[in-house]
Amino acid sequence: MRAVDLIRRKRDGLPLDPAELRAFVDGVVDGSWPDYQIAALLMAIVLRGMTDQEAAALTRAMVASGARLDLSDLGPAVVDKHSTGGVGDKISLVLAPLAAACGAIVPMVSGRGLGHTGGTLDKLESIPGFRTRLSLDEARRTIERVGCVLIGQTDEMAPADRRLYALRDVTATVESIPLIASSILSKKIAEGITGLVLDVKVGSGAFMPTDEEARDLARAIIAIAAANGVATEAVLTSMGTPIGRTVGNAVEVREAIATLDGRGPADTTELSVVLTARMLVLGRIAATIDEAEARVRDALESGRGLEKFGEIIEAQGGDRRVIDDSSRLPAAPSQRPVEAFSGGWVTIDARAVGDAAVVLGAGRDRAEADVDPSAGIEILATEGSEVSAGETVMVAAGRDAARVEAAAALLARAIVINQVRPTPEPIVREVIVGVPA
Amino acid sequence: MRAVDLIRRKRDGLPLDPAELRAFVDGVVDGSWPDYQIAALLMAIVLRGMTDQEAAALTRAMVASGARLDLSDLGPAVVDKHSTGGVGDKISLVLAPLAAACGAIVPMVSGRGLGHTGGTLDKLESIPGFRTRLSLDEARRTIERVGCVLIGQTDEMAPADRRLYALRDVTATVESIPLIASSILSKKIAEGITGLVLDVKVGSGAFMPTDEEARDLARAIIAIAAANGVATEAVLTSMGTPIGRTVGNAVEVREAIATLDGRGPADTTELSVVLTARMLVLGRIAATIDEAEARVRDALESGRGLEKFGEIIEAQGGDRRVIDDSSRLPAAPSQRPVEAFSGGWVTIDARAVGDAAVVLGAGRDRAEADVDPSAGIEILATEGSEVSAGETVMVAAGRDAARVEAAAALLARAIVINQVRPTPEPIVREVIVGVPA
Repeated sequence: MRAVDLIRRKRDGLPLDPAELRAFVDGVVDGSWPDYQIAALLMAIVLRGMTDQEAAALTRAMVASGARLDLSDLGPAVVDKHSTGGVGDKISLVLAPLAAACGAIVPMVSGRGLGHTGGTLDKLESIPGFRTRLSLDEARRTIERVGCVLIGQTDEMAPADRRLYALRDVTATVESIPLIASSILSKKIAEGITGLVLDVKVGSGAFMPTDEEARDLARAIIAIAAANGVATEAVLTSMGTPIGRTVGNAVEVREAIATLDGRGPADTTELSVVLTARMLVLGRIAATIDEAEARVRDALESGRGLEKFGEIIEAQGGDRRVIDDSSRLPAAPSQRPVEAFSGGWVTIDARAVGDAAVVLGAGRDRAEADVDPSAGIEILATEGSEVSAGETVMVAAGRDAARVEAAAALLARAIVINQVRPTPEPIVREVIVGVPA
Repeated sequence: MRAVDLIRRKRDGLPLDPAELRAFVDGVVDGSWPDYQIAALLMAIVLRGMTDQEAAALTRAMVASGARLDLSDLGPAVVDKHSTGGVGDKISLVLAPLAAACGAIVPMVSGRGLGHTGGTLDKLESIPGFRTRLSLDEARRTIERVGCVLIGQTDEMAPADRRLYALRDVTATVESIPLIASSILSKKIAEGITGLVLDVKVGSGAFMPTDEEARDLARAIIAIAAANGVATEAVLTSMGTPIGRTVGNAVEVREAIATLDGRGPADTTELSVVLTARMLVLGRIAATIDEAEARVRDALESGRGLEKFGEIIEAQGGDRRVIDDSSRLPAAPSQRPVEAFSGGWVTIDARAVGDAAVVLGAGRDRAEADVDPSAGIEILATEGSEVSAGETVMVAAGRDAARVEAAAALLARAIVINQVRPTPEPIVREVIVGVPA
């Protein structure tokens, strides 16, 4: 099976069969396909598309090319959540402990922030000592002990994805539903899950700007996951304004802890409860959404979720005392308030805040850049609240005073002061329930 | 101007402007664009297409990236012909001397055979001593002396084309009218010509199987050439059956000499006269096609064309005695006849004969392969002639007896014996006259 013949078939709009897609993925992993042939096929896929059957076979081949956690002895409740990426999205830090506290098994593999969106790994690593790079063996033992592990992709899992993603980034072949879906799912399926909740963000701070595009991605992922034996449900959620009151790393950990302690912002709490409840239903821990939500709220109010977060932190080498003492998290020496230029009702653009977070050093614009764990944005006047002229809306903070200054200038442009109270957007826009796997 | 941004624009169907196309070509030549980004852009061009304006700017950038012969002091009669490639296509060997004998300046840069089509350079190199690798200085001096030079692409001319073509071949990005047109024209324009006759082959032995596709390519080339100051006319010619009675290298040189001596097959003679006459009109040597054809026939009948071929051979280091003594050309020790399996009227498929020529070693299936100059196919019973069962239709010949055997088996399948006389296809199917440059 010659590479050039596979490329030609896709170029001409013909589907690739599972054996051809396996040959491609094997060639990516063993190096026998040179970068230029991979790049040509990726561009042909972007422009010609893939059927769900092709994308499912591609995903299966990507999973098969690496190691896969076998958690089948742990029952049907091995579930996870994936978010397509947002601004201030600390939901994983709340949801994973809550789900585990309710009896779910959560083998969560997360990524780092890139561009205007943050990453769960960067947030976790702001906890002193927290290790996100575990071997699959260590991950397995941690799951057995605490019911949850929060790690990064290992070299063993879906190795084709790393090489493909690096090439897609420099060849303008990122924007393709089958390529996005297979990249996400190959890593999630390698976790050994039986169920997945997908949080598809929609709005300025998301990669999918419209409901229609978000729906297309959700449907493709649900179909591809089903073909690979993973029951998946998607929730489309609003990403026009940042989630909660913090954007950054240590600041988001602090807010996640507050949320697990029952003191979180309403939107962060609601989104965490809704998504965790869907995980419990997928994992057959609860029969209905209402029952599941009641269990999640109980884990929240009883403090069992917060206790579980402490266990996870400790199991992964972190300092669990951050739970009671947030001064143990990195603090930013330089701070700069951003004020309302007139009185009225505030709206805040997620994308602009995400871009400011990159300038601040809380995010990164290149995959290899480091982040400043202390850097972050605090939102004092959230979307829809009323302010007077000169009142502080946000505070930018970080290690580097010049970056803080530049970020504050950007943040000023993220704020709109409205003369009428804006209609709030619903957090959950739409739920797409999968067909049975 | 980042490579990834250019790729994204073309991926999204937006046109690239001349500065962007220059940046691309410069990146190809100076190595700053890696192969994978070139491959991604090539695939985007194949699937999104290019306007004639874009293709003209791409061609201009490719010419500008290398050296260009300046023959402007030699007047307006600097003309050339390009054929899109066929089976048994020895027309250049007849046409170039004829045109030069009529006063045209012919700085012809040709290519090698690839796949089922032969190449003028391979044919010329079967003449003992003939050098096709001349520097641009040597080429210029040869043109001044004999009015014609027959060479291969030098490293100095259109250097972007070499790297692009090598990549296109392995990334299934050959089949694109703007890429084909810019590759052909960048080399032709670098010759310093003012006029070009394009022989677009149509049929089984051609790259363009239908008139419609041939017409699209012709129109694109005419428009791109006009935008670059080269007046171009295209002739669509039939390539369903081999041209003349020989397919190979030394055997085609022998047939070209016979044609220049007035003893050639009718189709070879007609095609040579028609195309040469159009060159004379484009070069303003003749005012009308009729006048031009009369001049070409005179050069043929008087022997001035053959004499000119001898001068060219001598000027390029070859043994001009081959003209009077074809035994000085390489001869094939192994021969095998292919017979008619029944009586009737013969048709011969050009593509199958071209494929047999590759098996024989007269052509090549990889760019880096060598050819056997003695290998070739002789056609005794040409398209439309009547044969009896057992009569020899073709003879395969070459150095390697096993290859000759394998080629003969393929040739048997190239022959169809019809129970009625087939209607002959016209050699010239259509003429597309360009707009003034």
